[in-house]
Amino acid sequence: MSREGETAGARDREFALRCPVPLPPGDTVLLGHGSGGKLTAQLIRDLFVPVLAGDGSELARLGDAAVVEVNGTRLAFTTDAFVVTPAFFPGSNIGELSVNGTVNDLAMMGARPLFLSAALILEEGLPLQDLGEVVTAMAEACRRAGVTLVTGDTKVVERGSADGLFITTSGVGVIPDGVEVGPERARPGDVVLVSGPVGSHGVAVMSRRAGIEFEAELVSDTAPLTELVHAMIAAGDVRCLRDATRGGLASVLNELAQASNVSITAIEAQIPVLAPVRAACEMLGLDPLYVANEGVCVAIVAPEDAEAVLAAARSNPRGEHAAIVGSVGEGPPKVSLRTGLGATRPLILLAGDQLPRIC
Amino acid sequence: MSREGETAGARDREFALRCPVPLPPGDTVLLGHGSGGKLTAQLIRDLFVPVLAGDGSELARLGDAAVVEVNGTRLAFTTDAFVVTPAFFPGSNIGELSVNGTVNDLAMMGARPLFLSAALILEEGLPLQDLGEVVTAMAEACRRAGVTLVTGDTKVVERGSADGLFITTSGVGVIPDGVEVGPERARPGDVVLVSGPVGSHGVAVMSRRAGIEFEAELVSDTAPLTELVHAMIAAGDVRCLRDATRGGLASVLNELAQASNVSITAIEAQIPVLAPVRAACEMLGLDPLYVANEGVCVAIVAPEDAEAVLAAARSNPRGEHAAIVGSVGEGPPKVSLRTGLGATRPLILLAGDQLPRIC
Repeated sequence: MSREGETAGARDREFALRCPVPLPPGDTVLLGHGSGGKLTAQLIRDLFVPVLAGDGSELARLGDAAVVEVNGTRLAFTTDAFVVTPAFFPGSNIGELSVNGTVNDLAMMGARPLFLSAALILEEGLPLQDLGEVVTAMAEACRRAGVTLVTGDTKVVERGSADGLFITTSGVGVIPDGVEVGPERARPGDVVLVSGPVGSHGVAVMSRRAGIEFEAELVSDTAPLTELVHAMIAAGDVRCLRDATRGGLASVLNELAQASNVSITAIEAQIPVLAPVRAACEMLGLDPLYVANEGVCVAIVAPEDAEAVLAAARSNPRGEHAAIVGSVGEGPPKVSLRTGLGATRPLILLAGDQLPRIC
Repeated sequence: MSREGETAGARDREFALRCPVPLPPGDTVLLGHGSGGKLTAQLIRDLFVPVLAGDGSELARLGDAAVVEVNGTRLAFTTDAFVVTPAFFPGSNIGELSVNGTVNDLAMMGARPLFLSAALILEEGLPLQDLGEVVTAMAEACRRAGVTLVTGDTKVVERGSADGLFITTSGVGVIPDGVEVGPERARPGDVVLVSGPVGSHGVAVMSRRAGIEFEAELVSDTAPLTELVHAMIAAGDVRCLRDATRGGLASVLNELAQASNVSITAIEAQIPVLAPVRAACEMLGLDPLYVANEGVCVAIVAPEDAEAVLAAARSNPRGEHAAIVGSVGEGPPKVSLRTGLGATRPLILLAGDQLPRIC
């Protein structure tokens, strides 16, 4: 129960020193390790991949979902823990977010999401009505996304041992024959699209957290992207898809550049940002390109298909503000931003968080 | 970030009052809601099933894993959150537990476990070496169980917002053709088996938590049960399987009685309990029949196959102490224990916890 007990347990644990990678004693987990930025990438590269899987494994591929084959069917399989604070924020809550997030991770591999699981970690004392509303939001989100929640688990921890509620959703989907999407498929000459204005989710949560009321209503963009994505895939060769969650557009571009060993140049003036989101970002000191989205994806598309894929995206309600925002060049992997003034600056992966616990 | 922020968020949330089932204002989540006992069952029956799924759904079936069909293949799909405290305990740690727990939930549906996901919620300040050892234990457990960890997620919350680390694993397995196992398949006349001595996991964790050193070594029984289960299935008609985790043997018998609408009578003298576990339970004031196990399952078997299934279990290292411990009678659902003195007493589902956060 007590932290003392845990440390005592750790001292004489029998797994001591079995870990095959060096971890300096005294180093601890930082908030930035959960940021989706450079520290997260380091933890994955230096600990999780070598210990759990090895290079060349599906885990090391670092897709939004794993792709596995079972009896000739390609399944996408993914998991995400949601720890957003506050749990209720403008436009949505942690329940809807946890369903849409996993649905979108499956969609980003070109899959049709089918089945979801949910594991709830509840803090003793959580109002049952809050739980009821979160679960109701999950049910509504499942219906909207056309998925079925088939299994779950509930754990309760003592008051003070968790922050309200955490939800981990996992999902299984089927990748239709012929669909080939993966973070390593971008090539020089490809075109970069975003499906909608960036920054809305993070700013909505942050405004609530900071207790700021903006004149314009800022609401989370959380939404299922399955139909949008399949419309785009049907319209042309979509090489890579990724939903721009933690770390925002800039981090996702870096991940794709790394996975495909290419450079990416984004054009600042072409990146859609809603005016109130831009204003709120200025007030809060945030860069919208690094702010989390929960209903926006990045697509890297073959150049000859870019206009057709863009048109397909715009024909979907979730993609009406879709835009071409950049292009892919030769490696080594890096991301640059061409600013409104015509200058070019690197768009790096941040070490840690602009906004911790945003999803 | 603050609890105040969350409450404020909840007050003007737009999901207010959408929940279709009545939840009395002022009621809160209790530790017992996570116990695996009566309060857990109520939460599932009164909130999760009606809101998320409805009667007759796969969720309402309440198997250890859901069974879903994809392109003619029967998949088992499951999730479990692990919040055990302390995270390191005699014989194992939360990492190994999280892999074996999900492997076993798949095996209990007669599946061959194949792929796992892991979502980690880490508390800022967790020693990286502890994380390294937990992840190493996960890798070793995956190798032993023959499963591949293919995808994951890491979130970090501020110091004080979680207790060390929580791990949610989900898993996918394939149910071979011809295998039919389910909690609703028990019939009057069937025979009840347990695969090994009960109570070891809970007592090992509890002894560490209480800071008690027993003369005899008490270690968790955490282990993958796939091979044991498939040996039993190959030997005869295994109708139901369930691993006796939270709530122990007594709770699992109640769940199976309920799901199959049968009564179950267990014979106390035939239930294996290791002598040091029995002694520790007496000292700690615990009933071993309600103490969690992490490497023991209950099987309900057709009477004509009981001896063959028992022999198959005993031929596996994890089942060498397997025993026939009871029998199935007509409903209504209830569980009775015939004591050593020849009396019979009801073995009810407890409302809450003997041991919170045991897995």
